[in-house]
Amino acid sequence: MVDSRALRAAVVGTGLIGGSVLLRLHEHGTDVTGWDPDDATRAEGRARGLRFPDELADAVRDRDVVFLCGPLSTLPEALRTVTRHTKPGCVVTDVGSTKGAVAAHAATYGLTDRFVPGHPMAGMERAGLGAAAPTLFDGAAWVLCPAAAGMAGFRTLAALIIDVFAARVVPMSPDVHDAVAALASHIPHLLAGSLAGAVAGTDLRDAVLGLAAGSFRDGTRVAGTPATRTADMLLNNREQVLAQLGRVTGFLDELAAALRADDAAALVAHYRRAQGLRLALLDRATRPAPRSFALGADVDDELEYLLSLGSSGGYLTACRVADGEVAYTGHLPPA
Amino acid sequence: MVDSRALRAAVVGTGLIGGSVLLRLHEHGTDVTGWDPDDATRAEGRARGLRFPDELADAVRDRDVVFLCGPLSTLPEALRTVTRHTKPGCVVTDVGSTKGAVAAHAATYGLTDRFVPGHPMAGMERAGLGAAAPTLFDGAAWVLCPAAAGMAGFRTLAALIIDVFAARVVPMSPDVHDAVAALASHIPHLLAGSLAGAVAGTDLRDAVLGLAAGSFRDGTRVAGTPATRTADMLLNNREQVLAQLGRVTGFLDELAAALRADDAAALVAHYRRAQGLRLALLDRATRPAPRSFALGADVDDELEYLLSLGSSGGYLTACRVADGEVAYTGHLPPA
Repeated sequence: MVDSRALRAAVVGTGLIGGSVLLRLHEHGTDVTGWDPDDATRAEGRARGLRFPDELADAVRDRDVVFLCGPLSTLPEALRTVTRHTKPGCVVTDVGSTKGAVAAHAATYGLTDRFVPGHPMAGMERAGLGAAAPTLFDGAAWVLCPAAAGMAGFRTLAALIIDVFAARVVPMSPDVHDAVAALASHIPHLLAGSLAGAVAGTDLRDAVLGLAAGSFRDGTRVAGTPATRTADMLLNNREQVLAQLGRVTGFLDELAAALRADDAAALVAHYRRAQGLRLALLDRATRPAPRSFALGADVDDELEYLLSLGSSGGYLTACRVADGEVAYTGHLPPA
Repeated sequence: MVDSRALRAAVVGTGLIGGSVLLRLHEHGTDVTGWDPDDATRAEGRARGLRFPDELADAVRDRDVVFLCGPLSTLPEALRTVTRHTKPGCVVTDVGSTKGAVAAHAATYGLTDRFVPGHPMAGMERAGLGAAAPTLFDGAAWVLCPAAAGMAGFRTLAALIIDVFAARVVPMSPDVHDAVAALASHIPHLLAGSLAGAVAGTDLRDAVLGLAAGSFRDGTRVAGTPATRTADMLLNNREQVLAQLGRVTGFLDELAAALRADDAAALVAHYRRAQGLRLALLDRATRPAPRSFALGADVDDELEYLLSLGSSGGYLTACRVADGEVAYTGHLPPA
């Protein structure tokens, strides 16, 4: 079994997410280096007692695990640079909000055995190392995309993320992740932007701000995310966001049609469906779904178990490699 | 000056909102009676040491102020019943989420001098007296609709609500309220319902629930409101909701078009506008806007001051009637 404290880690790009990853690893006692292209951020990191070499190569050279946490648009190049400066056994992951493009990029460059796409589902409106918090991922879902060629790296990362970050690891294929993230995160950002942006342009703006209560505050919260970060996220998942958006606007059209027709029964029926989803979100009871697999053999069954777990709403709370096998503690929602 | 403790109050309809009004008045030391059409609710109220006569007429007969807090559809009849059983000097208000229809109803029955439409902007997904909380309105905006024929009642209520509930009183005409509430509250409910309802109907439902983080939780919260209450609210403000919804879907269409065109600059520009609105919501600095008016004369100036205050995003934190004048402590957002 791998002791997560014995792994040497690096975090490349130390804004909100990367900074939080770095701080948590450091608190945990892991040997970790940080790097950021911004001089002031590296100086801030050093002032906080963290190791921040000036050169990216120096930050990653002898590492076992590297977290790529820069902006989405920088990931492909960062991935190639980091793999060039690290040994073949070093596992690389990222924290970008879409997974299809970066997974395809890794495949193109023959890096599927070393790169495990990742996405911790946590964040906040603020940005920068100053806003980073080591507890940001407590209890959060953290997606990892396993692939047959990189199962060893997946197991190492899954164990590390569960042990160090107290997160639930959700295994998913890059494509399923991108469709799900469109509905779970990107479209909520579109709706919040629409509400806030529309009100900003009306003559009722000040009066709306004066009356804004819980529903408006909640409904606009992620409109406070830095605009370039939101735009970057949406553009990187463009096709899935537009495809899934059609389902949401379709339901909105049905609600508006029922309202226009003064059809109380239809409105209530639609809202019962919405309310049921909300209740299911609040009551996430699960049943255990553990599995073990022999190491060194065919990984198809292991991969199928993992991908099915994630697409069924399940997650892992332990991954132990010992005595020639890997044991997963999985959980699934009620059948 | 009227001492709010000396007023005798009644609350008709003691669900979440009415129950919270009742509990707060009771805690404050006001002589207050409650009434609800549901036998079990009246029994529950009595068990909590509150006065709950079996007959509505007995609950309201000798009162100075009556809060109508039943469902929107019951308001017109409740208003006529209560005014029949109270003396002419008794001020009646309601807490319904739309104001145009009930104000028109009061005008039709010649009750504008006694009825002041109201709407506290507070609530939660739960319902019933059991979920009521005396602190529900702390710091909330509480709309009151003043009218020339009922200024004395408006002043009494404004003072009572500020003193007892620690709420900000926002004076608004019924029509402005309904347009503003559509954007500030009703459309957020439509967007939350669309997101939750659409996800409920997809094959990705369980996986989305598994990944749902802050943006999805916030974006669906009010979809947990009881379906009949949401439908009632939307239907009662149908025209304004549909009119204002066009502005929000218009902005959403612009965002989707920019995304489809891969136009990062347009997306960022739109999100900057949305982010600006969100920042303005979080930073509600105000400047003082106090005014005093002589009693007994023409109330046009007073009415104009009050309506302009509310439609400009302002509110009242004091209303004092003494020495032949009424003194308002108003606040406005920065010019």
